[in-house]
Amino acid sequence: MNRRMNCRVLGLLLLCLAVLMILPTIAGLWYGESVWHFIITMAITGAVGFVMTRVKPYSSVIYAKDGFVIVGLGWILMSLFGALPFVISGDIPNYIDAVFETVSGFTTTGSSILENVEEMSQGCLFWRSFTHWIGGMGVLVFIMAVLPMSGEHSMHIMRAEVPGPTVGKLVPRVRQTAKILYLIYVVMTAVEVVLLLFGGMSLFDALIHAFGSAGTGGFSNKAASVGAYNSAYIEMVIAVFMALFAINFNLYFLLLIGRWREALKSEELHWYLALIAASVLAIALGIREQSGGMLNALRHAFFNVSSITSTTGFCTVDYVQWPHYCQWILVILMFCGACAGSTGGGLKTSRVVMVFKNIACEIRQMLHPRTVTRVQMDGKRVDETGMKAVNTFFACFMVLLVLGTFLVSLDDYDLSTNFTAVLSCLSNIGPGISLVGPTGNFNIFSYASKIVLTFAMLIGRLEIYPILILFAPSTWKR
Amino acid sequence: MNRRMNCRVLGLLLLCLAVLMILPTIAGLWYGESVWHFIITMAITGAVGFVMTRVKPYSSVIYAKDGFVIVGLGWILMSLFGALPFVISGDIPNYIDAVFETVSGFTTTGSSILENVEEMSQGCLFWRSFTHWIGGMGVLVFIMAVLPMSGEHSMHIMRAEVPGPTVGKLVPRVRQTAKILYLIYVVMTAVEVVLLLFGGMSLFDALIHAFGSAGTGGFSNKAASVGAYNSAYIEMVIAVFMALFAINFNLYFLLLIGRWREALKSEELHWYLALIAASVLAIALGIREQSGGMLNALRHAFFNVSSITSTTGFCTVDYVQWPHYCQWILVILMFCGACAGSTGGGLKTSRVVMVFKNIACEIRQMLHPRTVTRVQMDGKRVDETGMKAVNTFFACFMVLLVLGTFLVSLDDYDLSTNFTAVLSCLSNIGPGISLVGPTGNFNIFSYASKIVLTFAMLIGRLEIYPILILFAPSTWKR
Repeated sequence: MNRRMNCRVLGLLLLCLAVLMILPTIAGLWYGESVWHFIITMAITGAVGFVMTRVKPYSSVIYAKDGFVIVGLGWILMSLFGALPFVISGDIPNYIDAVFETVSGFTTTGSSILENVEEMSQGCLFWRSFTHWIGGMGVLVFIMAVLPMSGEHSMHIMRAEVPGPTVGKLVPRVRQTAKILYLIYVVMTAVEVVLLLFGGMSLFDALIHAFGSAGTGGFSNKAASVGAYNSAYIEMVIAVFMALFAINFNLYFLLLIGRWREALKSEELHWYLALIAASVLAIALGIREQSGGMLNALRHAFFNVSSITSTTGFCTVDYVQWPHYCQWILVILMFCGACAGSTGGGLKTSRVVMVFKNIACEIRQMLHPRTVTRVQMDGKRVDETGMKAVNTFFACFMVLLVLGTFLVSLDDYDLSTNFTAVLSCLSNIGPGISLVGPTGNFNIFSYASKIVLTFAMLIGRLEIYPILILFAPSTWKR
Repeated sequence: MNRRMNCRVLGLLLLCLAVLMILPTIAGLWYGESVWHFIITMAITGAVGFVMTRVKPYSSVIYAKDGFVIVGLGWILMSLFGALPFVISGDIPNYIDAVFETVSGFTTTGSSILENVEEMSQGCLFWRSFTHWIGGMGVLVFIMAVLPMSGEHSMHIMRAEVPGPTVGKLVPRVRQTAKILYLIYVVMTAVEVVLLLFGGMSLFDALIHAFGSAGTGGFSNKAASVGAYNSAYIEMVIAVFMALFAINFNLYFLLLIGRWREALKSEELHWYLALIAASVLAIALGIREQSGGMLNALRHAFFNVSSITSTTGFCTVDYVQWPHYCQWILVILMFCGACAGSTGGGLKTSRVVMVFKNIACEIRQMLHPRTVTRVQMDGKRVDETGMKAVNTFFACFMVLLVLGTFLVSLDDYDLSTNFTAVLSCLSNIGPGISLVGPTGNFNIFSYASKIVLTFAMLIGRLEIYPILILFAPSTWKR
């Protein structure tokens, strides 16, 4: 492990975080609020970051292990410092709560411990939603995009931070790839902001909700979330953008360079869209009567399905009132999540598809023991190592879900609450079912459970290993 | 596929079933009941079986595919015919209900649709519990033990019927292996009957509860299950035997031939016992107060942990009243289940241990990409194919659990009820949580859900593939 280099990169990260806090400071000043909490945080974060970047590394090589450690520790540091404005301003007086909320922001989960979000200062509200936007694409990818990082080994960082079973470089150079991804991200966010302004939203609200959907986060500045606007136009804009941000960004790159045929042939995309369509239809049929007609039912079903499957977590209705089979469809979507290489979380559609294909292969193999059958994705054979990684990831996700639920169940809430709270955090959704549904709140949990859920969110966003590895003793051996 | 040979083996199975029904007939006669329902069923089953055995096969070869098809179809046939006495006698007038109860019996699940079990005739009660005993070791293994079946290919049948990731022959000949397994099974059941008689149980009750624990089934002839006897002695005898029957029978064989050192070194056994000990302790601490002291808490915890982890499903208390974390421990045990090669169900301890080890390996591999790490069990390396099979099985189990819960949730019960009902059936436990807890009943479900749960039980007992394969079109292609 290249400790000095890691320290330097983490320092860069903190400096970057301090710079990014200029935006919420401006928002606070605009609304005539005190912004001392941001200035103090920027000073602390900047100073620590500066000291850390002063460490001179002997070499700039970043090994695979370093990639994981940088990303794992980086996200934890970012959250610990990012939580300071909430505590200093008094908007979230308890530090554990503030870290929960910040991790929920950066990991684009959107679970909140705030019982009355509308009481928060505008600056902090802006910062809270801006963390979604930062976390969506990944702040380390951002650093790679803007700073000249020596060594092609930075690919290890990208691989650890970008979700999905395989991370491809769009262009030979990592830095260019990171730049292109951010460019697409910025442009799509800007388009959404403009469309929301057309719908009559204020610029502040439009930014908040665009950050929330771009990062597939789900923090709103309204207690009733997107439902507060009661506008079909706004709901449809957000619903469509949530779905768009949950699609693999590589496909947008392919579209950009004119290879749209290739982009539209993506197998993951087909399954993802099919899953949305089937879920919307199945749910709409179930909530037809309580929504007052099929059209309204489709509207609510589409918004909430898009919100859950993109792992955003905005709400327009209290789906805990829906028939139980509709709620279970949402739980299934919580497992599947978004597409690989998007800003969304969950197991990822491609992994789920591969798990299904692998089961079909196993059965075929049993019927015809002498023929060799292999899983194919996009017409290409998935090699054994890749399939093993997917299976192991799936198993690890399930094991963590079951163990996490056990830890949270010590608070003695019902099974549905515990199970969906952990699932929702692991998949970076936001709301769950029962007590943590759209009208519920994560403040019901004890601090111990909040810490467990905080780790669940980090584990989910970073796809398990960068966080688990921090607990492996062999990581820290010289 | 060797259709004629398969037909013949299935015919043998039905003949065997008809013969086995002599026992409940005797029980009915003993209690002076009408036994026409058994006689009619025996006549029908015997006649169909006889006709099927008249089919002359061109060859006696049984391929891997045939093994699956025989076991899959065999268990369905057995259940369809085995349900007849309940319908004819009027004890369970509806055929779907009767099939549910019979499948629950054969698969050693023990989930019941009976709202008042004590009203049932003694003959039918005997038959209901006897199905546990037949299903526990597997009726096809029984046929192999008693009938001279030509061709060593019968191993394919054994492999499909005996649970666990790997099925070893104890001795070179399959028939001898099957005989030894049955001998151990009969002797252990007999010992339990004697011990229960010492506790003051009637012979009838002792047989019912010995069948229930030997098969790890869980049908009782008392509405309050084992709790009805209110005897610590009886509870402890049953608890110990439930745990014993959930241990790999190969270990008993090793003990028999004096290789006890090898038997006691089994890694699966260590994990299994450690899991029981940890669960009992954790639960006892949680129910200390409501049980009136630690001793009583340990008694209840041990009985119910042994019952759930062995996948039996006898109850002494209504654990739905326990703290939620204790209930979640039971859910975790429902996943893990018993040991491979036992009469119990679930994922099996060895599979769960292998899944954990594989995750640890994956993490080690990430930290040290150049070293090759492999999963080891009992000091031997698990090959890639074996590990892939375990991972695929795990994934398949989870997928079926999620999809099954969706189908059952159409009945609009709460998430805990649906989820644990399906889990309980898939793992062949019996009771679940919430509405299907120890005092609950599976009669709350619609017929559609009962059919889904019936398949879940068969899928669980036969370890998924023999049932799934029946739905693959390529199975039936010539």
